[in-house]
Amino acid sequence: MPKYKVGIVGATGYTGSELVRLLSQHPDVTIEFVTSESQAGNKIQKIHPHLLDIADIDLISVKEIDKHKPDLVFLALPHGVSMSFLKEHGLDKFAIIDLSGDFRFSSRGIYEEWYKKNHVAPQYMDDAVYGLPELFRDKIRNARLVANPGCYPTSAILPLAPLIKNGLIHPSSIVVDSKSGVTGAGAKPKAGLHFPNVFGNFTAYSLVNHRHTPEIENTLQKHTGYSTEVLFTPHLLPIDRGILTTTYSTPKKPVNKDLVEELFHSVYEKEHFVRVFDEPPSIKNIRGSNYCDIYATFDERTNKIITVSTIDNLVKGAAGQAVQNMNIMFGLIESTGLKHIPLNP
Amino acid sequence: MPKYKVGIVGATGYTGSELVRLLSQHPDVTIEFVTSESQAGNKIQKIHPHLLDIADIDLISVKEIDKHKPDLVFLALPHGVSMSFLKEHGLDKFAIIDLSGDFRFSSRGIYEEWYKKNHVAPQYMDDAVYGLPELFRDKIRNARLVANPGCYPTSAILPLAPLIKNGLIHPSSIVVDSKSGVTGAGAKPKAGLHFPNVFGNFTAYSLVNHRHTPEIENTLQKHTGYSTEVLFTPHLLPIDRGILTTTYSTPKKPVNKDLVEELFHSVYEKEHFVRVFDEPPSIKNIRGSNYCDIYATFDERTNKIITVSTIDNLVKGAAGQAVQNMNIMFGLIESTGLKHIPLNP
Amino acid sequence: MPKYKVGIVGATGYTGSELVRLLSQHPDVTIEFVTSESQAGNKIQKIHPHLLDIADIDLISVKEIDKHKPDLVFLALPHGVSMSFLKEHGLDKFAIIDLSGDFRFSSRGIYEEWYKKNHVAPQYMDDAVYGLPELFRDKIRNARLVANPGCYPTSAILPLAPLIKNGLIHPSSIVVDSKSGVTGAGAKPKAGLHFPNVFGNFTAYSLVNHRHTPEIENTLQKHTGYSTEVLFTPHLLPIDRGILTTTYSTPKKPVNKDLVEELFHSVYEKEHFVRVFDEPPSIKNIRGSNYCDIYATFDERTNKIITVSTIDNLVKGAAGQAVQNMNIMFGLIESTGLKHIPLNP
Amino acid sequence: MPKYKVGIVGATGYTGSELVRLLSQHPDVTIEFVTSESQAGNKIQKIHPHLLDIADIDLISVKEIDKHKPDLVFLALPHGVSMSFLKEHGLDKFAIIDLSGDFRFSSRGIYEEWYKKNHVAPQYMDDAVYGLPELFRDKIRNARLVANPGCYPTSAILPLAPLIKNGLIHPSSIVVDSKSGVTGAGAKPKAGLHFPNVFGNFTAYSLVNHRHTPEIENTLQKHTGYSTEVLFTPHLLPIDRGILTTTYSTPKKPVNKDLVEELFHSVYEKEHFVRVFDEPPSIKNIRGSNYCDIYATFDERTNKIITVSTIDNLVKGAAGQAVQNMNIMFGLIESTGLKHIPLNP
Repeated sequence: MPKYKVGIVGATGYTGSELVRLLSQHPDVTIEFVTSESQAGNKIQKIHPHLLDIADIDLISVKEIDKHKPDLVFLALPHGVSMSFLKEHGLDKFAIIDLSGDFRFSSRGIYEEWYKKNHVAPQYMDDAVYGLPELFRDKIRNARLVANPGCYPTSAILPLAPLIKNGLIHPSSIVVDSKSGVTGAGAKPKAGLHFPNVFGNFTAYSLVNHRHTPEIENTLQKHTGYSTEVLFTPHLLPIDRGILTTTYSTPKKPVNKDLVEELFHSVYEKEHFVRVFDEPPSIKNIRGSNYCDIYATFDERTNKIITVSTIDNLVKGAAGQAVQNMNIMFGLIESTGLKHIPLNP
Repeated sequence: MPKYKVGIVGATGYTGSELVRLLSQHPDVTIEFVTSESQAGNKIQKIHPHLLDIADIDLISVKEIDKHKPDLVFLALPHGVSMSFLKEHGLDKFAIIDLSGDFRFSSRGIYEEWYKKNHVAPQYMDDAVYGLPELFRDKIRNARLVANPGCYPTSAILPLAPLIKNGLIHPSSIVVDSKSGVTGAGAKPKAGLHFPNVFGNFTAYSLVNHRHTPEIENTLQKHTGYSTEVLFTPHLLPIDRGILTTTYSTPKKPVNKDLVEELFHSVYEKEHFVRVFDEPPSIKNIRGSNYCDIYATFDERTNKIITVSTIDNLVKGAAGQAVQNMNIMFGLIESTGLKHIPLNP
Repeated sequence: MPKYKVGIVGATGYTGSELVRLLSQHPDVTIEFVTSESQAGNKIQKIHPHLLDIADIDLISVKEIDKHKPDLVFLALPHGVSMSFLKEHGLDKFAIIDLSGDFRFSSRGIYEEWYKKNHVAPQYMDDAVYGLPELFRDKIRNARLVANPGCYPTSAILPLAPLIKNGLIHPSSIVVDSKSGVTGAGAKPKAGLHFPNVFGNFTAYSLVNHRHTPEIENTLQKHTGYSTEVLFTPHLLPIDRGILTTTYSTPKKPVNKDLVEELFHSVYEKEHFVRVFDEPPSIKNIRGSNYCDIYATFDERTNKIITVSTIDNLVKGAAGQAVQNMNIMFGLIESTGLKHIPLNP
Repeated sequence: MPKYKVGIVGATGYTGSELVRLLSQHPDVTIEFVTSESQAGNKIQKIHPHLLDIADIDLISVKEIDKHKPDLVFLALPHGVSMSFLKEHGLDKFAIIDLSGDFRFSSRGIYEEWYKKNHVAPQYMDDAVYGLPELFRDKIRNARLVANPGCYPTSAILPLAPLIKNGLIHPSSIVVDSKSGVTGAGAKPKAGLHFPNVFGNFTAYSLVNHRHTPEIENTLQKHTGYSTEVLFTPHLLPIDRGILTTTYSTPKKPVNKDLVEELFHSVYEKEHFVRVFDEPPSIKNIRGSNYCDIYATFDERTNKIITVSTIDNLVKGAAGQAVQNMNIMFGLIESTGLKHIPLNP
């Protein structure tokens, strides 16, 4: 018997349809409503035909949600739109998990510098909690507004946090070389994401100025207390889902391979969704699931610590992590409704 | 509280790992054992690393299964091996769902002609039931040996059966043009399935002599009473999972578009796993799920009925259908443990 | 020493950039100009970065081409735009090879019925020659306006023409089941061609009403004298380039496998760009080249003739065929500048 | 009129068929023979059907090559086999370009340490010249044995060499993060390269011990005089062809973005096959061609120089570079027969 009622604001994007996939089978919640301003009045399967016969949902406008009295609302909206909706549609009366980048920073200045736009709802920034459960579980429990992490930051912070927190590496000049599937760039057609332009192709983009850079740095600092400096380079993989992130950093005290491996095993031993691998992980081992797989090693010859981590950008990098946060906020077991086994092959 | 104990014979292939994926989350069964002659003694995650921390299974030899007293055993073995194992390892004492092609024919002669090998266990052919629930649900309920259908035949029989059964089309000279992802060809590396040889490529193969041809013909005849003749042409799609089958046939009485569409809606209205679409379906709308999506139409200009159908070859085309059969044999609701929502995108 | 000067009208699409690829290395022509109304004033590598350091071309407006006095002009424009440009910009003073569908029909009525638009330059339809060299070489030689064939029609007509012409098959109720890479749908981003929507996917589209249907029928009739009726079903392959077409037809007199194979060998023996295969061809064997590979066989059991053919939709299906036509019009050896070896793997 | 006769030893692999593709259209050479021990007696199109009607070559055994009196022989053989063949079949009487890794090191010790096998023909190591024309053109001109570079090293050395040579970066602790298509791993089917295991997937491999590491280090040292230390991490891209390499290094004197960019423009200005880009290059811009595209920039915030470079691993990373070396050895213009325009899209 489901105990909680939730709503989803924003249905046309990938995170919206993933939330429907995950929540429609969650044993303790019901989806009370899904909104779309452009598709209000249509069935959800009109935009997402794979949901035919599964989720019989009539899309409504965000203006009609009050009567549903949800226990929690997910905002599956683009950057910039979330903050406007929160403010303009009085969504602050609900517990909120926001999947955009609008509330991931404590500082308005950093947001405006990297996102190149004014923040229209800065009054909520202070109380927003960064929703990475493995690091901030306790704060999430009592949050009213959870800023769900970006996909790249999730894949980079989980392997880097133990190294910095435990004083193993110099927290400046960390190199993060990430490779992401195309769904990370959203559902809107663009020339750069047109099938023939991506198929059989591979490229780097947004060198030195991608806005996930300050998100990685600030979160690591918040968690570890160390000021960090990260060079982040994203690349576009010719696949639909999945991120693999390789990091390089320099030890600040003598380490060895065993010590590094044991650190990760001990830090993440009790986590539901972090699996520590003994060899470099691959993307299909986590496809469709909420896992983050991590491998860490040390190269004595060049004196570098290397980590390789993988997530499904739409699950642990977005909708799955949002549901994990919801479970924490509702006091449920954190893995409830999230035990999807990776789809491999 | 799970009520039934099942075992899986054969773990290294794709159908074996899909069975583990589906059964390990089934609410009414426990996986008592998984066997592998080549990997006995190892953990299953050694072959299938995506199962790490999910299914803690020690692989055993088929010789050790008796002590487990399973209620049902799945044979996830190659064609030819199933019949040998059934005979040599005394598996006939268990209820069996066999995923190979060894027991799909009533006639030993047809098997030997198309599979080019002697049948070593013909004594079981007569009592074997063809496990396509939508057509043979009643027989499956009481079967001791279920021959789980081939992937191509599942995708072709479901759209063709209503047309033939209702006397709409000439049952001879039906054209079945199928396109399958590479997992349909098995997990064993071969030159023709080497990544660079399939990527960006597409080809037809086994023209006029693919062994799924008689399986389609015989099953349609068994179900409809009409003798059928099918020209079946398989093609290899450069994707991992999924089959799309297009069929062409000639009406034997006056029909129109509406009549054809309504027939499919009415025949499959109450089925859990057949969805009738109003436009041609696409493979990603069923990826990872047990659905068969069907579209049917009529071209007045050329006087042809056309159907387009899709399945995930590893789910409705193999492991999912096997679990559906198991549910029927156990008297469970047919969709138990099979409500996986398609992974799209 | 190049002898001829040619121009290309339309540079932003795929056929425009393929023409540049092929013509810039052709020994007997120089590219005098390339036009683009939206990019006039820019270098071509701004739109097609792979041409950097290769083709140093300044894009101009179509209004500036007269001074260049080209011997021939290629129109690489969308359907509907070609006929407008021809009329409005006085291009009829040049020899023209038009890669759109605007002049492929002798009948204005058929064009308007299937293309759903008025034809604005019907006065040119009568004299336009359908540019499939293997069938209409003699007419092409003296043409002023060549209508370059569509990609699907090229792949279907080459295997069907010998069968019909030689009275082997009933010319009605031919089934053409085609599968095309995404470049066939053009360079303009659309939801249905957004990378995540095509990757790992496969679907049928435009059932019974694709406008290449009358092009196939009319051309076969023009060449063979028989009235034909074709059921054409296109599918979208998740690859960039290439078409594979499978056809099914019924013999109208007794045939056998050998007779069918020999027919194709003898008909296409002297052609530069048709290769008759002894097994079903695959797309990568023709990638980037002007070949059409054909396999034909007969299934005695179901009494059907089956053909499988492949082309690169941007080469033999567009720009390569256009250059082949140009060679004929210029009196050059037909394969001049077209001996690109397929890129495999 | 071709002036030179060349032979290819080893035909079944990808480099063998690429050499045939490039050399069969080279204006100044004829392919006198192609050998294959396993396929001797067959036509080359039996292994490489895309060459049907293009290269009518009867494969012979290496034992029969003497009578052909070639001016130069390419060895397209696996590592370890080249050195054996050179020694056992008396190939040292010919000018040789060896595409394996067997003669890329001056030190037998390093070879044996990283390749884990004894070197059986160390007497040739001293005189072998590393065939990277942009760095060692003068030595190649007079070489008798050219060791054709590895694909990864080519993609890494070309962007790193100018930085080290000009004293811009610390030559130790350079990070090279490379991503390669699957053809780089060879034509032999293996589980890790089975289509379903690579499709939609991405992984890192051979961390800290890939044998291209010492090849990069030693070559950079030979060219620049500085001892270098490189951390090299290869990743497997789910595409057929192409490498993209991202490097990270620390300046050893004050630099800025302009200075870095200008350095590359000036160093590579006159090169036929190095194109300096003003934005990160992508793989399809060089597909099928001999180009190496390079982008270099400087991140002031983290004080790092970043380069991104791309090559087609089978062309500039193998067969194309071999032909470039051959042109130098024969005194031809270096780009002869190598002006293939990239196949994009």
